[in-house]
Amino acid sequence: MRYPKHLMLLIENLKRLPGVGGKTAERYAFQMLDWKREHLHEIAHAIINFADKIAFCDECGCVRHEERCEFCTPERLNEGVIYVVSSPREVYAIEATHEYYGLYHVLGGLLSPMDGIGPDKLKIEKLIKRIESPEIVEVVIGLDATLEGDATALYLQKELAKCEKKISRLAFGLPMGSSLDYIDGNTLARAFSGRNPV
Amino acid sequence: MRYPKHLMLLIENLKRLPGVGGKTAERYAFQMLDWKREHLHEIAHAIINFADKIAFCDECGCVRHEERCEFCTPERLNEGVIYVVSSPREVYAIEATHEYYGLYHVLGGLLSPMDGIGPDKLKIEKLIKRIESPEIVEVVIGLDATLEGDATALYLQKELAKCEKKISRLAFGLPMGSSLDYIDGNTLARAFSGRNPV
Repeated sequence: MRYPKHLMLLIENLKRLPGVGGKTAERYAFQMLDWKREHLHEIAHAIINFADKIAFCDECGCVRHEERCEFCTPERLNEGVIYVVSSPREVYAIEATHEYYGLYHVLGGLLSPMDGIGPDKLKIEKLIKRIESPEIVEVVIGLDATLEGDATALYLQKELAKCEKKISRLAFGLPMGSSLDYIDGNTLARAFSGRNPV
Repeated sequence: MRYPKHLMLLIENLKRLPGVGGKTAERYAFQMLDWKREHLHEIAHAIINFADKIAFCDECGCVRHEERCEFCTPERLNEGVIYVVSSPREVYAIEATHEYYGLYHVLGGLLSPMDGIGPDKLKIEKLIKRIESPEIVEVVIGLDATLEGDATALYLQKELAKCEKKISRLAFGLPMGSSLDYIDGNTLARAFSGRNPV
């Protein structure tokens, strides 16, 4: 017994969401059976507006939906720092810390030869061009502490060296609120080698 | 820092899905940033078709998208049994067992005074009318083994008694493949009181 066609199509589409398999997609779809028709139209139109109106800034790669990118401002340029991240999502996480007021640069991914993502797939050339601006004094590499993140950071370090600007990377160590009992060996070793005088 | 408007609206809409909170909705939305525009339009149109073309059978309450309900057939009526369930989803789960070929009746919920769901919100009158058909010899109550399911089953038993048809309820006991070590006391007690001669 197959589901009616339009229920089936909805389930197939919902399965594209990250971490959503058949069972979860079915649960979502059957819940949506109980929704009012106008609620279903609302979510559909939200997706269409999202598809048609959300764009990426040509300069920094952040999300924008107006003509002007809210992150590429003269005030932020005056801070003299570019924070390099892999995806637009991280920009919002950094903004939420209220500790950083400079520019961003979204690479659009991390190096991953297994998935066919080489340096040409990332916005590295654009980054080098932006760094050459005389206002920029420092580049902060804010990439994942994973194999792909490390590989990308190393590659960037090498590529950016010729720009002769200060290059830094986020500190590795204990996450705040963590107990030593539950910290993995790699983190503990990085926290030790990066220890600071007090 | 707020997200751009259309990203925000998408996140708000995704939060309506069952079990999806702010974090998961953000994860879905940021993943959708990477989708092709036509994929986003596909899912939006799947939702619109679902909203506009999926309907419920007036007779049994199952989902249908054609004029004719695929469950209300003369062959199924000839089986003489009506299987009462709370939601359309369960119909597909029962069909997947390939053990039942009779009619269905979807109540549209379970009695729950706390949520304001009284007998008038469920399709009980319609059920009584259907049972009166001379072809029907048995009503199977297939409701959850929960407080609400039990309350609804008891109410139905009382209401259907005057129809003078055979009324049965699904058996309670050990789920297949389960180990006694992990079975809760209630289930064990129901399995004992419902024990069968071998």
